[in-house]
Order: sequence, then structure tokens, then C-alpha cells
Amino acid sequence: MSEFELIRKYFSHTVEERTDVVLGVGDDCALLQPPQGCQLAVSIDTLVEGVHFFPDIDPFLLGHKALAVNLSDLAAMGARPAWVTLALALPDSDPRWLQGFSQGFAALAHIHNVQLVGGDTTRGPLTITAQVHGFIEPEKALRRDAASVDDLVYVTGTLGDAGLALRMIQGSVSADDYLPSLRDRLERPQPRIAEGLAVKGLARGGIDISDGLISDLGHICRASDLGAKLFLDQVPLSEGVGRYINQGGDWGVPLASGDDYELCLTVPAENKDEFEARMQDTGIPFTLVGTMEQELGIRCQLPGGGLLDPLPGGYEHFSHE
Amino acid sequence: MSEFELIRKYFSHTVEERTDVVLGVGDDCALLQPPQGCQLAVSIDTLVEGVHFFPDIDPFLLGHKALAVNLSDLAAMGARPAWVTLALALPDSDPRWLQGFSQGFAALAHIHNVQLVGGDTTRGPLTITAQVHGFIEPEKALRRDAASVDDLVYVTGTLGDAGLALRMIQGSVSADDYLPSLRDRLERPQPRIAEGLAVKGLARGGIDISDGLISDLGHICRASDLGAKLFLDQVPLSEGVGRYINQGGDWGVPLASGDDYELCLTVPAENKDEFEARMQDTGIPFTLVGTMEQELGIRCQLPGGGLLDPLPGGYEHFSHE
Repeated sequence: MSEFELIRKYFSHTVEERTDVVLGVGDDCALLQPPQGCQLAVSIDTLVEGVHFFPDIDPFLLGHKALAVNLSDLAAMGARPAWVTLALALPDSDPRWLQGFSQGFAALAHIHNVQLVGGDTTRGPLTITAQVHGFIEPEKALRRDAASVDDLVYVTGTLGDAGLALRMIQGSVSADDYLPSLRDRLERPQPRIAEGLAVKGLARGGIDISDGLISDLGHICRASDLGAKLFLDQVPLSEGVGRYINQGGDWGVPLASGDDYELCLTVPAENKDEFEARMQDTGIPFTLVGTMEQELGIRCQLPGGGLLDPLPGGYEHFSHE
Repeated sequence: MSEFELIRKYFSHTVEERTDVVLGVGDDCALLQPPQGCQLAVSIDTLVEGVHFFPDIDPFLLGHKALAVNLSDLAAMGARPAWVTLALALPDSDPRWLQGFSQGFAALAHIHNVQLVGGDTTRGPLTITAQVHGFIEPEKALRRDAASVDDLVYVTGTLGDAGLALRMIQGSVSADDYLPSLRDRLERPQPRIAEGLAVKGLARGGIDISDGLISDLGHICRASDLGAKLFLDQVPLSEGVGRYINQGGDWGVPLASGDDYELCLTVPAENKDEFEARMQDTGIPFTLVGTMEQELGIRCQLPGGGLLDPLPGGYEHFSHE
């Protein structure tokens, strides 16, 4: 089967047909019609076997995750998803694997009305690269460099679930009955698209938490030339992570683990009420965890008082060099 | 060094600054302003070490090629290049390699006024995925499904140079004094951007020849529900490939090798003169090699008469399955 047919067979019938797709999978390029008056938001992300996922992962979950981590970047800008392209390097073309992967990918694409418009398949070590494309009105994007001093810092959902799941799976923390729900958070992250759309124009700074709150809020701080204070007793924890922390666990789990895919947003105090009302409508929990400050760096106030020191570091590739 | 800084350090200072880039590398998404009245043409391509290039390739040439093969897809639609994103999986972050790669990438980006607007770097087996974005007016694209019966079939440049270089390097054909120039064609393909732009609206069908003329013209034939006849004495050959064929070499070299990155275009007879005049202005050789026919399949008339049978097959990943 040619690479062309591989994409056509497994992917082109499984996704939405949008009217703004003039020409989809199958030519040298896709031809797309962006809406007038909008900017285009794009993000590209790669998942590598053994680095971002276990070799034995369910291909359906992998298809989901490959799209989810990208959509999360659109969510973090407040952009509306539209199109996706997919480049697959595959050690072989196992039909069962491809079917599972494409179904997981397509199921999430369907939820967010995203159409697969182009792709490439080649032989190689399993590597999945997807690029998402979305729309946003000028001046409405949630940017890392847009936070202001005294902005309130909010996060969606709960933090550290995926990180704790990973530690349990790898054996550095003993598994308990929370593992199935924690593992679901690791394997099936939900991009916070509706939340990003609901608060664009109300929140100022925004990022998705993919490398841990400290690291990602750190990106906002550096880009905005500010610092932040976090109140650790406010940080939203699931029951599983809450129990782990109460038993003296490492704050690095909720603060510096990867794969949360929640949003961190900074909100001017005057928008607080409207921001909270709109977030409430989305049905996703959200929590005020701190404030932006003039003083650079991030300070984490412990539940019992005093500051967490040193801060746990976020996960970075090539960080030891 | 973080993945973020890796991209910033090696890539963000080396490329054009376009006014339609609202926000480039460094946030969750790039923010881009497409021009009014244009469609967006996008294409994504992956190069894998050991599959698409030798492990000892000069990183400068690899950076060039990673962008060139993508730009070639824009050329094949008649689109004007604008933006590119780059996802790199790297076994390590060797500064010398990254510097060479980014310089090769940036040098070609500069020629075509393309800005790197986003990227991702991660650890993994060396895999390079780039997506290009260009603009084209509605109804002007050179599409695979747009050829008509009796259209004239043209190709740019010469065919089979990269394929013969590869055979010489791999040893299945003895190397001769043509190897350096053939090898340059393999390692430094030139995307035919100006040629695609010059003839959009005059040519109808279009594709870039990446898997060999037979295979790629075959895509036009299938998409347009037509066949084609090629006159092999018209197929443009460099001196090196010409000598190889004259000595009884395999027609598969010019007809069914990868990596030509020339354009194959179908042109209605009434546009012949204007098409040829515009192509002449580009300074790139172009040759009439055949015609589109009602009868499905591709027929290749040998220089001495008679048909080439069987046809050499184009290179396809997963083709043996």
C-alpha cells in the first residue's frame, strides 16, 4: 500500500468535512480558506515512542493524545480549532494499529470539529507529529507576554494526576486504588478548548500546563517580565494527589510533572467576576492559585506558612546540557 | 538548554521577519495573518535518518533539503511561500549539528522569503518534520485532478540525476566524473517556486516529481481519471544520465527514481505559447514530454519505437505490503 493510500484509507473518511476545506488529503498541498478578519493560530508537536509514550500504549489512546496535546496549545491561545495535519513515521504498517490510532484521533477531532487536511507517512521509528490550525480575532489571544502585575493566576482542573500516574506505573510511588483514574488523565488528556474560547479577551496571559505549573507559569513570568506568588493550599488536587501530598509526598508531583494539559490564565482583577461566571458555564473546575508580582521568580507559599525551597523543576528535554 | 531555548537560539534569528507574522516562535501557538482573498496552501513532510538521508549527511545540506522538499509541494500548487514550522526529534543537542542544520534551513528560507514561525524539539531518533504554508488565489491552484484530455505534459529541469547519484553512492552503478554534479542534485534540490508561480492559471494539472515521473504523473492520471503517453526521446536528461541511458542503462533511473523535485505540469494546447513564454522567463529548462489521453494508464514510447514494457515502478513506502 502506498503512503498516499495509507492516509486515504485510514484517515480521510473518519473526520469532519468542513466547508472551509477547498481541497483536503491527496494533493501536494491542502487548500484552505481562512475566515475573513481572523488570525490563524498554529502549533506543531511531536510524540516519540519511549520518550512521550510507552511502546505498549493502546493505539486508540495514542491517537487521542497526539491530537489532544496539540489542541491544548490552541486552547491556551483561546483559538477555535479548524484543521490538522499529521506526519507519521511507522516501523511497519500494521492495519490493526493504524485503525486504532486513526479512530482515537478521529474521535477527538469529531468532538472539536477538526478536519484532517494533509499528512505524510514514512518508514521509521514510531514518531507522530501533528500540526493544528485555529482561528482567533485580532488582539484576543491569550499570550505568554500579556500578563500584568497584580493579575490573578487561575488554573483549570486538577494538577499532578498524570505525573502521579507515571510515578505509580514506573514504580517510584506505590500504586493505589486511584491509579485507574490517574492513568486516564495521563492517557486521555482533554484539551480545554471551550474554556480558552470562553475567557479570551477576559484573561490576559495564558499557557497550557504541559511541563508542570512552575515551569509553564515561569514561561508567562519571563515573557511578561514579571514574577508570581502561588498559594499551595489553593492548588487544586484530585483525591489521589491530595492523599499523596497529605502523606508527605513530593510537591513536584502537582507543581512540576508533565502532561497536565490544564490551562494557566492570568486575569486582571476588574475582570474577575465576569471571568469566573464564564468559566462556571464551561462546567470545568477552575481555581485561583496566586497573583502576578513585580518581583521576578516564583514563590510558593506552603500550607503551613513559609516558602517551598527549592522549587521543584519542570521537565525539560535537553535540560542537563 | 530547554527545548524552547534550543529553537530560539538556533532558529529565530536566522530567518526573515515578515509583517504577516503577528507572533512567531515562543508561545503556545504562532499567530499569523493570512492575506485577504487568498487561500492557504499547506503541506507537511517528514525526513527520517536512514530512510531519507544517510547518517553522515552534512547537516547544512540536510537543513536545506528538509525545507526544499516541502517548498517543492507549494511550487507544485503554484503557491507563494510564507511560513514554516519545524519539529525536530534529535538523539542529542550537538551545537555544531544544530548550527549547520539551521544555517542550511535558513539560507533556503531567506531565498524564498519564508519565516520560521513555530517548532518543537524533543529527544528521539533523528526525524525532521516541516510544514510549509503559502498563499494562492482561488481557482488558480495546479491540482492533480485538473488535467484534461489532450493537455500537453511538461516537466522542468532534468530527470533521474538524484536517482543515478544514489545508485552510484550505493554501488549498484559505477561512479564516474558526473557523480559530483549528480550528487548535488540529490543533496540540494531546488524547489521550482518561481516556475509554479509563473504558470499558475495557464497550466491545469500539476505535481512535483518526488517519486519518479511515472509514479507522479500516475497520480495526476488517477486523480483526473485519464491516462498519458510519454515520448522517451523527449525526456530531459543531464549529460550524466544521458550517457548512462545511451550505454543501455535502466529507464527506471529517469522515470522512476525519487528526489527529482522537478515539476510535471499539464497544459491545454491553447495556452502552449503563453505557457512556454512564461517558463522561458524563469530561466529553468522545460520540456514537452507527452500528452494526456482518455485511455487509462501510462504508455512510454521508446526512442526506437515500441512501448517500454513493463513500466518501471516508482518508489513507494510500504509498497510491498
